[in-house]
Amino acid sequence: MDASTTLLDRLIADGLLIPSGVDGIYARSIRFERIVDALDALVGRVGAPDGPEVLRFPPAMPRSSLVRSGYLKSFPQLLGTIHCFCGNEADHRALLHCVEANEDWTSQQRVTDLLLTPASCYPLYPIIATRGRLPHEGGIYDMHAWCFRHEPSLDPARMQTFRVREFVRMGVDDQVLAFRQLWLERAQDFISDLVLPYAIDVANDPFFGRSGRLMAESQREQKLKYELLVPINSEVKPTACMSFNYHLNHFGEAWGIESSDGALAYSGCVGFGLERIALALFHHHGFDTDAWPAKVCQALRLDA
Amino acid sequence: MDASTTLLDRLIADGLLIPSGVDGIYARSIRFERIVDALDALVGRVGAPDGPEVLRFPPAMPRSSLVRSGYLKSFPQLLGTIHCFCGNEADHRALLHCVEANEDWTSQQRVTDLLLTPASCYPLYPIIATRGRLPHEGGIYDMHAWCFRHEPSLDPARMQTFRVREFVRMGVDDQVLAFRQLWLERAQDFISDLVLPYAIDVANDPFFGRSGRLMAESQREQKLKYELLVPINSEVKPTACMSFNYHLNHFGEAWGIESSDGALAYSGCVGFGLERIALALFHHHGFDTDAWPAKVCQALRLDA
Repeated sequence: MDASTTLLDRLIADGLLIPSGVDGIYARSIRFERIVDALDALVGRVGAPDGPEVLRFPPAMPRSSLVRSGYLKSFPQLLGTIHCFCGNEADHRALLHCVEANEDWTSQQRVTDLLLTPASCYPLYPIIATRGRLPHEGGIYDMHAWCFRHEPSLDPARMQTFRVREFVRMGVDDQVLAFRQLWLERAQDFISDLVLPYAIDVANDPFFGRSGRLMAESQREQKLKYELLVPINSEVKPTACMSFNYHLNHFGEAWGIESSDGALAYSGCVGFGLERIALALFHHHGFDTDAWPAKVCQALRLDA
Repeated sequence: MDASTTLLDRLIADGLLIPSGVDGIYARSIRFERIVDALDALVGRVGAPDGPEVLRFPPAMPRSSLVRSGYLKSFPQLLGTIHCFCGNEADHRALLHCVEANEDWTSQQRVTDLLLTPASCYPLYPIIATRGRLPHEGGIYDMHAWCFRHEPSLDPARMQTFRVREFVRMGVDDQVLAFRQLWLERAQDFISDLVLPYAIDVANDPFFGRSGRLMAESQREQKLKYELLVPINSEVKPTACMSFNYHLNHFGEAWGIESSDGALAYSGCVGFGLERIALALFHHHGFDTDAWPAKVCQALRLDA
């Protein structure tokens, strides 16, 4: 392949990912999935000493929950709502007529009460809210979900559907900040075991529009978000493979969750982009996992 | 709990499933997920001797692919299309105004080129179609995906989002029929190892509308679909936990896939509803997995 060959071209030529015809949507080969699974298990081993409550979420969640969490204020452009056909047989005939005429057949699709889970932690807060006041020691939760973000891209590290393993800490501010600091340290050991180059930096979420720019600035000033970045698709613009977030009492307020002292609960999360870390490994260590550094294979238990 | 307590009530009271506020959408506890994972692994071991090509699909797929496969003719009512906000800042302000006024905020959502994967095998056919004629021995594929079907229900065995492990056989008709027969036999061993009561019966898909009734009758007459049924939520109406399908050359024709002899390829699939089989186990053997029959624990390798 010539010099203009992209990482995505090479991943597809090698069969690690299989294109679907829509940018950012891929089938995964067993060689790719094996690494995603091994990474997921490794993240779980790193977080296990905290004794988190384990929850697994489906790729769809209630629309009302995400609205209450304030997602629409910040990221309307990333969200996917789920729409369904609720018509009768005449409507169905009209729909099929549109399909046959190669016209838009979706005009009868009506919005449901569901949307696509955009991050692994959003389904958590309504569950915690039903349980009453947090215990004195707060709570630690281990989550996994397929996430969706509407941002079609030719960068294989920017998929529209991807898996995020996440840990959330809820409690008083000190508990949350200590948890984030612990994971900032754990993450550096984790990524060193994977023999990947990295940098940790203050970051901001992709808030929508001009008012979003102010939110991004404020987030950076308050150092609410850090990212661990690894070069994948570009050396100049490395990819965020993990993020370390301090939500202040945003979710406590949205959901009326209280700490044991009766004040609004604080929260924070650490998220691992499993596909991104897998891509970082393939990019830096090659497509042949048998030739990966022994240290990496050991960390991922690839020999087991 | 009194006699009117449903299986869903008991699953929620026990914490195996956690409700989301929308029927058919649940968070999963670690105790539930452990069984789903063990079942998935067991199914994989049963199918491994065939040496299938392993593919894993995300919960979203191209809209055009599913249309080409003919899904809209049969099951428009089950499908979920994905819609996104593509507006500017003024549109965003209008959207937030609707949210605050507790009005419908989704009028600006526009359909994308994606929809929710409704069964694990649909993303396969376009991939096979790009590879040219099938080899003489045909093809065997091992798939897994989160699937979505818009059918909110209080029956925990009828979720809106659930995982299906599937094997597809493509080739000439004899190859496909032999594969289906083999899996009908394997499935009975599989379910016997899990010590579950079952029946196998001719079945039909939930085709839409009055014309759908004819399609259902034809499907039954030709014995294109068998189901393995286990009582879960109801003794009278047992739940399909596996299905064994013969597609004739439907997908070969839709995608122009040819067997090695140049004729349109035939296909068939066997699908395992992982949540359903897990629920069958909890229903029949109790919520305490430590008290499950030794034979079941052995088959699922729960001690490992």
